[in-house]
Amino acid sequence: MKAFQELSKEELLALREQLTAEYEDAKGKGLKLDMSRGKPAVAQLDMGNEFLDALNSQSLLKAEDGTDVRNYGMMDGIPEAKKLMGDIMGVPAENVIVCGNASLTIMYDTVSRSMTHGVLGSTPWCKLDSVKFLCPVPGYDRHFAITQHFGIEMITVPMTPQGPDMDLVEELVAEDDSIKGIWCVPKYSNPQGYTYSEETVKRFANLKPAAKDFRIFWDNAYAVHHLYEDRQDELADILGLCAEAGNPDMVYEFCSTSKISYAGGGISAVAASKANLDELKKSMTIQTIGHDKVNQLRHVRYFKDIDGIREHMKKHAAWMRPKFEAVLRVLDEEMGGLGIGQWTRPNGGYFISFDAMEGCAKAIVARCKEAGVVLTGAGATFPYGKDPKDSNIRIAPSFPTPEDMAMATDLFVLCVKLVSVEKLLEQK
Amino acid sequence: MKAFQELSKEELLALREQLTAEYEDAKGKGLKLDMSRGKPAVAQLDMGNEFLDALNSQSLLKAEDGTDVRNYGMMDGIPEAKKLMGDIMGVPAENVIVCGNASLTIMYDTVSRSMTHGVLGSTPWCKLDSVKFLCPVPGYDRHFAITQHFGIEMITVPMTPQGPDMDLVEELVAEDDSIKGIWCVPKYSNPQGYTYSEETVKRFANLKPAAKDFRIFWDNAYAVHHLYEDRQDELADILGLCAEAGNPDMVYEFCSTSKISYAGGGISAVAASKANLDELKKSMTIQTIGHDKVNQLRHVRYFKDIDGIREHMKKHAAWMRPKFEAVLRVLDEEMGGLGIGQWTRPNGGYFISFDAMEGCAKAIVARCKEAGVVLTGAGATFPYGKDPKDSNIRIAPSFPTPEDMAMATDLFVLCVKLVSVEKLLEQK
Repeated sequence: MKAFQELSKEELLALREQLTAEYEDAKGKGLKLDMSRGKPAVAQLDMGNEFLDALNSQSLLKAEDGTDVRNYGMMDGIPEAKKLMGDIMGVPAENVIVCGNASLTIMYDTVSRSMTHGVLGSTPWCKLDSVKFLCPVPGYDRHFAITQHFGIEMITVPMTPQGPDMDLVEELVAEDDSIKGIWCVPKYSNPQGYTYSEETVKRFANLKPAAKDFRIFWDNAYAVHHLYEDRQDELADILGLCAEAGNPDMVYEFCSTSKISYAGGGISAVAASKANLDELKKSMTIQTIGHDKVNQLRHVRYFKDIDGIREHMKKHAAWMRPKFEAVLRVLDEEMGGLGIGQWTRPNGGYFISFDAMEGCAKAIVARCKEAGVVLTGAGATFPYGKDPKDSNIRIAPSFPTPEDMAMATDLFVLCVKLVSVEKLLEQK
Repeated sequence: MKAFQELSKEELLALREQLTAEYEDAKGKGLKLDMSRGKPAVAQLDMGNEFLDALNSQSLLKAEDGTDVRNYGMMDGIPEAKKLMGDIMGVPAENVIVCGNASLTIMYDTVSRSMTHGVLGSTPWCKLDSVKFLCPVPGYDRHFAITQHFGIEMITVPMTPQGPDMDLVEELVAEDDSIKGIWCVPKYSNPQGYTYSEETVKRFANLKPAAKDFRIFWDNAYAVHHLYEDRQDELADILGLCAEAGNPDMVYEFCSTSKISYAGGGISAVAASKANLDELKKSMTIQTIGHDKVNQLRHVRYFKDIDGIREHMKKHAAWMRPKFEAVLRVLDEEMGGLGIGQWTRPNGGYFISFDAMEGCAKAIVARCKEAGVVLTGAGATFPYGKDPKDSNIRIAPSFPTPEDMAMATDLFVLCVKLVSVEKLLEQK
């Protein structure tokens, strides 16, 4: 079939009639599918239930340094958990603090602390007239929600397959000292699945921000979440590169096991320079009596070490791969060459990013919903929920089965075609 | 023996000589005991290790409403955990949000949120020139640390066996709209072990604060932590009384299982009005992807219900009682009638409060430390660590064995006597 743009008005009208009939037919099927969030599937969670057996009443409930994990204390985590989380991020254990069940909470708390207490002695952000963050787009809605919650102005920066547009990032941070941070998902980015190139990471480490309290929020959420054994992205070590560049304090790196053990029952960690960690611990000792060390020990006993994590993630990949491939197969077969959409082919992570023709994303998502397939809201991948081109849609294949994903993608394709035809007809 | 105040200078000098010799002797024993923090003992923790067997790979990992506890979602906690935590506090489940492993974190986050976002639409506290909290003293150092951390001015209010001096509380909150909160440990208070009387709780519920965003921080940390079966304090329901008084939004109540299951491996909860909970959830949905529901389910499966909790706490009491009694026996026998100290006799909780002669607390704690017994720092029970009378010392009997507690108390008594004699000699 030729590209939709090349069709005549008559052809488009005929196509619309046919697609509308198909759509009405699809609506009758009573689909109920959700590909809105990066939520692990039940089968994937079932696979790891022995995790719960890693600690029982007969276990030695001490960390390797003799700490009783059932009692108070040990603000920065048990040593073996620091090592494990450090290995996931590729940083030394001494640069790691292990926290509670959500890395999102560490990020939120870090922004919150900067608002009330500043950063390593800087003016608290709540005392400033203007605080801004750079937001590579499309990006992660929960990041944007944090900065929006604190009234921080968000400035978008376009993503490329190598990472954010670094010319623009360098320029902006150098000239505006109210720019205090940038949100990054540097590996298998949310939603495109891109991994920042080594050059991009080096340029990040060598930024010359006007604001001394500028920080890179490096959310390494998918560090070990590959889809293939033979096609794996590598991410350079931002912490090491920042130190080399004389900017040791410029970055916070985050990770969690939410998509390794249990979503919401995992552990999280932050990695940073000693100065940053010391500051973090200063408020942490006031905010908590220590994080859940029992769950930290459970993780280490079950996964053992980074090799154990890697083996476990191979099993995850075996569940995830068919879902991604089901989506891509349908997209390729049904929309290849039609000129009405572009999509990414990630080697890992939890998402596929789809760009529709301009002005079509909201209508596509609405059409899908009407026929029983829930997608992430159009615009969610942009600050304030506003995609200026109304084009980007995040596809999250993790929760449904591959069969359901294929069905859902069939419907998605139908909706993309129908909405695109309607858009083209408007322009005729 | 007669009261020290009645001794002549010569008698005091002789006594000092004798006590100094005893003290030098005690130092030689190489004691190493810690009664500084309200930390559960190893034996007490061992007793509850079957807790870890309550969930394993064969368990049904669903909440009673069908929610998969291993996945994201359910911001306010699984229904059965809300019920359990509500029953501990004596409030309906619908008024409860179950959170992470530390109620301290909920308190910190609540103050932090009020700083950045205000309270139900009020001006964010960080935008105000002056924010003050009332602090009943002696009180809990970690509460004071939170308000100090946020630059909130602390005003002390004396405690009585019925609770804080309510005449003063009523007067202060009515006249000063910069007073935004009060810290309370209403049951088996930290450190005195007092429980607020019904009249006190009613007066709290009927406060007429000048500040609309004034909140009572009701830290019900020891709700079920009785020492005796036949002597148990009862605490009136502040949430219900506030609602009756037309002040439904004036209180946040907190509790946790840190001293029921594991210290640091437990779950916590906040109870409040619907309006307060809605506000809390608004930031919580941005701060977290949901708390650890696996651990929530583990708690409910192990304890079942409030009766299960009560049975479990009877076993705790059996561990704790002999320690409290060892301390009280030594204090009674060695210091009764000497006029150099007063102490409380709590029916529950984790502490005994000791008041030395004015100006003696710091010296006593230092003497104890020199001889190998670590006490909570003198002054810790007051805001900014400053006890104006230098008199109050918190005794935490929970961690050592009863035998060790008796030994530690022997040394403590010796130090109190020695320091008191020296103080009296200064005044001769």
